[in-house]
Formats: sequence, structure tokens, C-alpha cells
Amino acid sequence: MSHRIVFLGAGNLATRLSLELKKNGYVIAQVYSRTKSSASQLALKLQTHYTTSPQKIIPDADIYFVALKDSAYQEVLPYVTLENKLLVHCSGSMPLSALEKYSERRGVLYPLQTFSKNRLVDFSEIPVFIEANSKADEDKLNQIAHKISHKVKVLDSEKRLSLHIAAVFACNFVNHFYSVASEILKSDGIPFDVLQPLILETAEKVQVMAPEEAQTGPAVRFDKNVISSHMDALQAFPEFRKMYMDISESIFKYHKNR
Amino acid sequence: MSHRIVFLGAGNLATRLSLELKKNGYVIAQVYSRTKSSASQLALKLQTHYTTSPQKIIPDADIYFVALKDSAYQEVLPYVTLENKLLVHCSGSMPLSALEKYSERRGVLYPLQTFSKNRLVDFSEIPVFIEANSKADEDKLNQIAHKISHKVKVLDSEKRLSLHIAAVFACNFVNHFYSVASEILKSDGIPFDVLQPLILETAEKVQVMAPEEAQTGPAVRFDKNVISSHMDALQAFPEFRKMYMDISESIFKYHKNR
Repeated sequence: MSHRIVFLGAGNLATRLSLELKKNGYVIAQVYSRTKSSASQLALKLQTHYTTSPQKIIPDADIYFVALKDSAYQEVLPYVTLENKLLVHCSGSMPLSALEKYSERRGVLYPLQTFSKNRLVDFSEIPVFIEANSKADEDKLNQIAHKISHKVKVLDSEKRLSLHIAAVFACNFVNHFYSVASEILKSDGIPFDVLQPLILETAEKVQVMAPEEAQTGPAVRFDKNVISSHMDALQAFPEFRKMYMDISESIFKYHKNR
Repeated sequence: MSHRIVFLGAGNLATRLSLELKKNGYVIAQVYSRTKSSASQLALKLQTHYTTSPQKIIPDADIYFVALKDSAYQEVLPYVTLENKLLVHCSGSMPLSALEKYSERRGVLYPLQTFSKNRLVDFSEIPVFIEANSKADEDKLNQIAHKISHKVKVLDSEKRLSLHIAAVFACNFVNHFYSVASEILKSDGIPFDVLQPLILETAEKVQVMAPEEAQTGPAVRFDKNVISSHMDALQAFPEFRKMYMDISESIFKYHKNR
């Protein structure tokens, strides 16, 4: 059975998820976004309608996916008629209960991945975590999630929050270190691409071994000579220098105690 | 023209580099390591001789590769007869001049990658940085490096140090964040493998876009709601909590100024 779906939000996650649902036979009946350019761009890709006005969100879809910043919930959801409709958010950090005041039927569908609007990802490998306030809607979300991924799990809000924090370390903070590395190289006129094979291999290693087994580098045994030559060389970057020492100490402590 | 090579050291880098050189036709005449198990294991893989005694390092090879911790140089190199022999270290952080007191002919061959003894890597894609104190030896190292990689560059000691620091951020520190993420998940009974697709995609993104363009997550616009819910949830991990806030502030500052 196919459901008619409305997407509230047209950002990275909304774009990739709505396209993936469409590909798997679901009808995306409408897209809402605050900005016309985002709304119309996604609607064009989905070959569907869009609105930038919360009041004009259609009331007769079956499922409403919320992929908005949580601060935008208040601006949008009070205007949507959600009588006996399933309202689903896609956020790692928000509890299911965040939807309490907007609908009787609530769910979460959280795909654990980093999305960009124009970058294809293989959804079938993405772990998808679901939750709902009734067994019937949990089953419904389970069915939808299984259409797009073969790694679906039911997970409560508290554990999903842990998952989101872990993802921030493993993705967002990791990517920031790629940027820091890029800045350090830039100051010596070295292009970032020299690091690409190293970055890929570092990620590939932990596909087959535990990260604590894969750890290398001067901090593991706190190699004073190497660390102090790095600290000297980082004098032009006081912020990166402090970060370097903090993380090195954390690595040393973590591996000493293992 | 093939050279007879001695390897001083039998760790991760020495293992992968010596095997790669052998594969490309070089003769590894001997392996030295302080510990018998390391020395004999690598010698077996290379089908060559080994010693654990610096005094027994053979004097008639052409090139001596040093893949030792820098603190071990003093314990080994004074005992090696290096008359008109090329002495080459493989370290990112050590200057070429670190070999000054041991040989007239000095060089560096630094492959920018993370190595494990038993993990195959595609050397042809690894950037290799070389340096020598004479043009003739620079040419020799250039020739050797080109046999194993098609990404060879001459780089001075100071820039190589920057490269090494960048690699520590992009590999060692990144891997530590994988460990931190793993610890956070462990406390909720969630297996690490749920993060593997995210980790791989994060690394793959920066193969085709600049890391500052790829940055996502709550810290970019300092989303207070998400960040404070993460801070609350991290109360059982005071060290990770502090790290979370420091890195989030660094991300916010970095992207605000762009």
C-alpha cells in the first residue's frame, strides 16, 4: 500500500529522503519550505507541488515528514491540519515527544548519514532508526524504512540522542579536522588533495577493525620529540595548537587505560 | 639499476614499504629490529636475513632505510658503517639534518599514509615526498619513489613537518574521534558498525569537495537547542563533553569567518 506523503523542509536530508521515497513508489504530494528557491527546486526534482505558506500545506496526505530545524517547528506545525495523520520527524537529537502538541500519531525516521542535496548515496546501506507512539505506526514506518534500507532498527529517543552525538564526533568533528589539516597545508602552499588517500584509508580501516585497534601516531605513546616539534611548528595557529595538545592528551590517556 | 637495501626497523611502515620495494625488484639484503619477533617476522615475509644487533648490520648495502622511532637513532646508527652509503629516513616530523652525524649522504622518503603490518594498501596512489642533500641522491630517491607511486614530490623538511601535522589531524585525531563515538555508543549498547557508512561517506565527500564545503552538523550555525541537549546527554563523559564544546566552538568560529 502506497502512502501520500508531504515533506516539510527542503534541505539536504529532505531532498535525499524524498527522492529515495519517490524512487521506491511513494507519492510525494507536496513540499513545503520557507524559502521559494528551496521549495521550488525540490518540487521540480520530485515533479510535485510546493508551497512556502504553512497555511497552504494540504490536509489530505497520509504522512507528513518534518525535516525542519527544530526552531522552525513552532513556525510551521501549528498551521498544519493533522487530524489522524502520521507526523514523522527525521532528527537524531529530538525526542519523539517533541511532536506531542502537534499530532496524536507521531513517529521518527532517522537515517544515520550525512547528506548533500546533489550527492547520491546508496540508501540501502544506511542504518535507519525508527520510533512511533503506537505499534501500528511503528509497523508502518518499519515497512517504509525497509523499502529504502536493509538496516532498519527500532530505537528509543534517548538512545537515538546518543547515536546523534556519536555521529557528530564521527562525521562533523572529523570533517572539521579535515578543514584544520587543509588550513595548515594552505599556509605552506600544499594542496589538500595530498591528504585524500590517507583520509580514505583511515575511514576504510575502521570498516574492518575497531578504531581503538587502528589508532596510530605520536600521541599513542606520547612521543615527546615529535609532539614538541609539532607544537613548535603550530605557533602561528594558537587555536589548532591548543586543540593538538588536548586531543593528544586524550589519545594518550585513552590508550594508557586500555 | 637495482640497489641492495637494508631496513632498520620492522614496524608498520617498514613492513609495508620494504615489501613494496621487494615487489618492485629491489633486493632487501637485511632487516634490523631491536626485538627478535619483529625482525624475524619481517625477514620471513621478505625471504631475507635479519639481525637484532646494531653491530651486525651489514656494511655493503647501497641504501639504508631508517624506519625507527627517532629516540632509537642513537642506539642504532652509531654502530652502522655508512661509508659512502645513502642513509634515508621515512619520518614526516624529522628534518633531513637529523641524519647529519651518521652519514655524508642523506635522504628522506616519506609516504603519506597510515600503515598496518598486515593490511595491503595501494602504494601507487600514496603521495611520496622525498628530499636529499645532493642532487644525485635526490634523483636516486626520485627514481625509487616513482617505482612504487605515481605521486612523487620533492619537499623540504619544514614543509614535510607541516604535512605531518596535517596528517595527524586528518588521520590520528580523526581516528580518535571514531573511538570516542564508539565509547558513547557502547554505553548505550549500540554496536560501532552503525557508524561505518557515515564514516566512509564523510571521507568520500572530501575526495570530491573541499572539507569546508562539506561541513554539516549543529555547530556550523551553533544550533543552541541541539548542542545543549548533547551537552546534557554527555554528563557521564566529562572529557568528551569538554571536547564537544571546544570543537563546536571552533567549527562555529571557522565558518562564521569564511
